[in-house]
Amino acid sequence: MSDTASASNVKKVLIIGSGPAGWTAAIYAARANLNPVCYIGVPKQDPSPILPGGQLMLTTEVENYPGFPEGVTGPEMMEKFQKQAERFGTRIVGEDIVKCDFSKRPFTLTTSSGAAVNAHSVILATGAVANWIGLENEMRLARSGGGVSACAVCDGALPVFRDQVLAVVGGGDTAMEETSYLTKFARKVYVIHRRDEFRASKTMQQRVLGNPKVEVLWNKVVVDVLGEDMISGIALQDTKTGERSQRDVKGLFIAIGHTPATRFLQGSGLALDDKGYVKMPVPHRSNTNIEGVFVAGDVADSVYRQAVTAAGMGCRAAIDAERWLAEQGVH
Amino acid sequence: MSDTASASNVKKVLIIGSGPAGWTAAIYAARANLNPVCYIGVPKQDPSPILPGGQLMLTTEVENYPGFPEGVTGPEMMEKFQKQAERFGTRIVGEDIVKCDFSKRPFTLTTSSGAAVNAHSVILATGAVANWIGLENEMRLARSGGGVSACAVCDGALPVFRDQVLAVVGGGDTAMEETSYLTKFARKVYVIHRRDEFRASKTMQQRVLGNPKVEVLWNKVVVDVLGEDMISGIALQDTKTGERSQRDVKGLFIAIGHTPATRFLQGSGLALDDKGYVKMPVPHRSNTNIEGVFVAGDVADSVYRQAVTAAGMGCRAAIDAERWLAEQGVH
Repeated sequence: MSDTASASNVKKVLIIGSGPAGWTAAIYAARANLNPVCYIGVPKQDPSPILPGGQLMLTTEVENYPGFPEGVTGPEMMEKFQKQAERFGTRIVGEDIVKCDFSKRPFTLTTSSGAAVNAHSVILATGAVANWIGLENEMRLARSGGGVSACAVCDGALPVFRDQVLAVVGGGDTAMEETSYLTKFARKVYVIHRRDEFRASKTMQQRVLGNPKVEVLWNKVVVDVLGEDMISGIALQDTKTGERSQRDVKGLFIAIGHTPATRFLQGSGLALDDKGYVKMPVPHRSNTNIEGVFVAGDVADSVYRQAVTAAGMGCRAAIDAERWLAEQGVH
Repeated sequence: MSDTASASNVKKVLIIGSGPAGWTAAIYAARANLNPVCYIGVPKQDPSPILPGGQLMLTTEVENYPGFPEGVTGPEMMEKFQKQAERFGTRIVGEDIVKCDFSKRPFTLTTSSGAAVNAHSVILATGAVANWIGLENEMRLARSGGGVSACAVCDGALPVFRDQVLAVVGGGDTAMEETSYLTKFARKVYVIHRRDEFRASKTMQQRVLGNPKVEVLWNKVVVDVLGEDMISGIALQDTKTGERSQRDVKGLFIAIGHTPATRFLQGSGLALDDKGYVKMPVPHRSNTNIEGVFVAGDVADSVYRQAVTAAGMGCRAAIDAERWLAEQGVH
């Protein structure tokens, strides 16, 4: 390791992830002459198929990233981000990081091809993937913009959902928030939950249960998503009786949680919360519990999860890394 | 006041400010069907001329806002943000808010024309203005992209400054950070300080004083900025001897602090720090000390001050306001 750790081989800033957070960190680090290296792969063992580019690669129309008044597609937007990072000299590596040793500096990271890479500072921006039911039509329509989504705040205001009957799957706080949000636009919102009570907090539940636009379908799971180009309905099964039923809906919002891509950090000493998100111990900063390791985007954010919030966090992480490196005398 | 506070007259979300934070809050609040009203004026009594659109109206070339790989001008970018906010139904009012009464809900705000406006929730996004020396040529060249700037992180990497002799004015932490940042690009950086010691922390000072590219000009003030289209030099005066001198520089970075636009909040009960920035008591959230009042952008950020960080904060404030209003039963 001492060979590869020779000064010239040590990356100043190593970024893991290639969504809005990772690319924005890369833009800022590159402009600060830190020659960042961006590992755009993410751990393959996660529950959903992951693409370089992050969750936005699954998003057809982005209407709320500021700067694009006519909207932009997710992949198009990520291409712009990447181009901007490359323009200022970011080096891109199409590999995953599978292991991190943060016990001594410079840090040692292991890539998916088994190579060891050394870095003075690391920015974690691996994101979180939405959990899906796992139905073929669900994934197909989510990818094609066919009315299936894992983010009401992102997609709920799209014209295709206005005054329609929609469905939310889930029973936690996020499902309640998404339902409450969708009632602003929808004619009616079904909440489909596999049990006979919600996990969500009482306040959240009351907000949803008291809303005349909401109908809860208890003890139900979605067993099929109907429709060719656009969703037309859902097939349900009762978890107690096994009985099948069907509902016509024009939109389906899956709110059964997210899985932060942090499995590769286990055993590294990096502090995660009980859901696997990276902890941010310093208010309004990008620090983690390990000096020299910074974090940005959905991997540390279970609250907002927006492209622009992730981008803002990526900028913070790069500025924090730059200032920390300067303090350490790394130029 | 009880008349104007009738349900139909109370704004759900009132946004003050029209930089990246304000417009992004407006985009998100509008898409959440909250009919936001955006007051785009800012207090006139602040030390610098303020334009609707925020500090970016003073920025010719923005290269680091992600999504624009070829760069974009500040005013062009703000026009896009505004258009996007308007597209989703933001109402824009060309007035200032001069007084806030947060003592009871709904809140009562007074506009510059003397009218009282009521709002269930408020998002503060009035920004902070860079302090300038106050020289005519300084302001002219700052506005025209002539090599005078108040933000090294924003502008330092521009080709026009590469391998050039630059100057930083100031003696605090920010001046040290900007100097340290600029040494990555510049051939040489003068630090011009009116006293014979820095206010900056010892660590910061050492970083700058130990850098061979830096020359400190103690006890000096800039009395003129030279050059027509681009800065060519600065005229200095010694604060002890009165002696005049001159230096050729291709860039001048003013780092003598910022003034957050919070004077109109004095007496409102909103907690400010000792420099006048809005305090954010909840880590990684947009809350202020007053329930229902949220904050975004440079008015609460003396650390990062970037368009994309402000935009991310604006998004957070709108999402927090939306969820808080739903909790309060305001639809």
